[in-house]
Amino acid sequence: MAFRKFLPLFDRVLVERFTAETVTKGGIMLPEKAQGKVLEATVVAVGPGSVNPKGNVTPVSVKVGEKVLLPEYGGTKVILDNKDYFLFRDGDILGKYVE
Amino acid sequence: MAFRKFLPLFDRVLVERFTAETVTKGGIMLPEKAQGKVLEATVVAVGPGSVNPKGNVTPVSVKVGEKVLLPEYGGTKVILDNKDYFLFRDGDILGKYVE
Amino acid sequence: MAFRKFLPLFDRVLVERFTAETVTKGGIMLPEKAQGKVLEATVVAVGPGSVNPKGNVTPVSVKVGEKVLLPEYGGTKVILDNKDYFLFRDGDILGKYVE
Amino acid sequence: MAFRKFLPLFDRVLVERFTAETVTKGGIMLPEKAQGKVLEATVVAVGPGSVNPKGNVTPVSVKVGEKVLLPEYGGTKVILDNKDYFLFRDGDILGKYVE
Amino acid sequence: MAFRKFLPLFDRVLVERFTAETVTKGGIMLPEKAQGKVLEATVVAVGPGSVNPKGNVTPVSVKVGEKVLLPEYGGTKVILDNKDYFLFRDGDILGKYVE
Amino acid sequence: MAFRKFLPLFDRVLVERFTAETVTKGGIMLPEKAQGKVLEATVVAVGPGSVNPKGNVTPVSVKVGEKVLLPEYGGTKVILDNKDYFLFRDGDILGKYVE
Amino acid sequence: MAFRKFLPLFDRVLVERFTAETVTKGGIMLPEKAQGKVLEATVVAVGPGSVNPKGNVTPVSVKVGEKVLLPEYGGTKVILDNKDYFLFRDGDILGKYVE
Repeated sequence: MAFRKFLPLFDRVLVERFTAETVTKGGIMLPEKAQGKVLEATVVAVGPGSVNPKGNVTPVSVKVGEKVLLPEYGGTKVILDNKDYFLFRDGDILGKYVE
Repeated sequence: MAFRKFLPLFDRVLVERFTAETVTKGGIMLPEKAQGKVLEATVVAVGPGSVNPKGNVTPVSVKVGEKVLLPEYGGTKVILDNKDYFLFRDGDILGKYVE
Repeated sequence: MAFRKFLPLFDRVLVERFTAETVTKGGIMLPEKAQGKVLEATVVAVGPGSVNPKGNVTPVSVKVGEKVLLPEYGGTKVILDNKDYFLFRDGDILGKYVE
Repeated sequence: MAFRKFLPLFDRVLVERFTAETVTKGGIMLPEKAQGKVLEATVVAVGPGSVNPKGNVTPVSVKVGEKVLLPEYGGTKVILDNKDYFLFRDGDILGKYVE
Repeated sequence: MAFRKFLPLFDRVLVERFTAETVTKGGIMLPEKAQGKVLEATVVAVGPGSVNPKGNVTPVSVKVGEKVLLPEYGGTKVILDNKDYFLFRDGDILGKYVE
Repeated sequence: MAFRKFLPLFDRVLVERFTAETVTKGGIMLPEKAQGKVLEATVVAVGPGSVNPKGNVTPVSVKVGEKVLLPEYGGTKVILDNKDYFLFRDGDILGKYVE
Repeated sequence: MAFRKFLPLFDRVLVERFTAETVTKGGIMLPEKAQGKVLEATVVAVGPGSVNPKGNVTPVSVKVGEKVLLPEYGGTKVILDNKDYFLFRDGDILGKYVE
C-alpha cells in the first residue's frame, strides 16, 4: 500500500478521508456539489513528532488506523499511487473517535 | 451518546449549547432572527490538555458536565449523530457557572 | 448576586462599570450620547490566574471589590441575571484606585 | 493629589506632560496648532513591574519625579481629578533627563 | 558534481526535482503546461542543522540520497553548474519515501 | 552638552549624524535634495542595555564616541538643546568603524 | 581595504558580490538589463554573532574569505570607500561553496 512507502516528517499525519456518500438511501445518485465535504478520515501514517530547539521529540497524538475528525479547511493534498491522501499537522486534527 | 465516542485532542473542549428560547413567556413563537445567540453551554467532552515542547501536559480547566460561558465568536461546529456540538480551545472559554 | 455564580477562567477579571452620570449637577437630564464612557469599574470576580506551559499559575493582580481603571476599548460584555458585566484580561486593566 | 490615589498595574508608568508654551518670548499668544507637541513629562506613578510566566517581577526603569522623554505616538490618556495624565509602558519611554 | 561543492547553511536542504514526464506512455509529447509540477525530489546536500540561542544544533531530518515529497509552494531555486536545484527548510519538507 | 543630561533607556543608543556635505569639492553649493542622506553617526549616549524576563541585563554593543553606520530607515528624532539627535535600538545599528 | 575598517554588529555579514559578466564569451557587450543578478559573493567581514537574552553569543556560520550564495532579495547596500558592499544576516545566507 502507498502509505507504507511514505513517512511524514515531524508532526505531520497522513490521512485518508472516508468515501463521500454519492447515492441517497433511496438510491438517487447525488451530484458532486450536493455531497457533503467529508471530514472523517483514517490515519494511515504518522511522523515521528515535532522536535523542540533542545532536540526533544514530542510524539504525535494519533495512531495509524485511528478514525479522526479533520478541520474544514487546511491540510495538504498528497497523491500516492494515484490515490488522494491528506497531510495535517497533529495539532490541527480536532479529535478522534473512540469505541 | 455521541460525545461518548468522540475524544477532542489537546486542549479542545466539546460543548453543547443550551437550547434557544423559541417561545416568549406569553406564548408567542419567536422567529429564528429574534432568538438571541446562545452563549451558555454544557461541556460534553474534554481533550487531555495541551502539550508543551518538553512534553508536559497542562490539563484543561473545565470538566464534563460543567456549565460554561462561550465567547460570541469562534469555535468549530461539529456534527455528531446529527446533533450540533462546538469545539472550543480551553483558553477561549470565558468562565463557568458554579453553584 | 450574579457574580457569585460566575467564575472567570484563567486571568480574566469580571467588572461592573460605575453608573454613568445621567443628570448634570444643575439637574438637567443628559441624553445617552452626552454621557461620557464610564471607564471606572468595580471588580466582582477574578479568575484563578494564567497558567504557563509548565503548569505554574500566575494569580491576577486585582482583588474582588477593588476599583479599577479600564482601557477605552476591549473587554467582553457578559449578561448575568439581566445585568451588564465586562470581562477583561488582567493585563489589560490600566490601574487601580487605592485609598 | 490625584496620582496618589491611582496605582498603575504591571509595567505601566503614569506621567504628566510639561505645560505647552502658549506664548512666544515676544509675548504673542500661540494658537493651539502652532504649539509643539510636548514630549517631556514627569513621572507621577509607576506600576510594580511586569511579571514573567514564572512569577518573577521586573521593576520599571523610572522613578516617581523623574523627567522623561516620551515617544511621539502611543500612550493612553487618563483623566484623574479633571487633569490629564498619560500611561506609557516602561519599555516605550525613550529616556530620562539626569542632572 | 555540483552539489559536492555547495554546502547549505543551517537547516536548509538542497534537492533536485525528479524529471517531469514530457512524453505520454503512448509516445505523445506533452507541452510544458500539461506537465504536472514535480513534487518528488532527491536530497543532494543538507545543512548542519538549525542552531538554537544556546548554541545547540538540531540536525536536519533527511539524508543525502533520500527521496522526499516537497510542498507545492516555497523553496528557493538555486542554479549550480547550469542545473536547477532547490533549497527547502528541513521543516517544510512534507515527508520521505522509504523502501 | 545636551547628551550629558539625557540617558536613553534599555538598549537605546543616542547618535549624532555627521554633517551632510553641502558644498561640492569644486565649491558649488548643493541644494538640500542633492545632499545624500547621512548614515554615519557618532554615539553620544547609550542605555544600560535590554532586560530579559529574568532581570538579566544585556549591555549595548557600542560605546560613546564610536562611529557607527545607521540603517537608512528607522530611528527616532530627538531634539535636545535645539540640536537634532537620533535614537536607535542597539540591534538596528548596522556596524561600527574601527581604526 | 574598506572592510578592514568596518565591523558589522551582531550576526551581520558584509559581503562583496562577484562582478557581473558584462561581455559574452563571443565578445559582445551585455546591456545592464541582460546581465543576471549576481548572487555569489565573498565574505569580507563578519559580526561577533547574535546575543541571546542570557548574554550567550552564537558566532556566525561563515568566515571572511568564504564564497557564499545570497538570497535573491534582502540585504542592505553599504557604500565604503565608494565601493558597494552588502550586509546580510547570517541566517539569510543560503549556503557556501566549499572546495
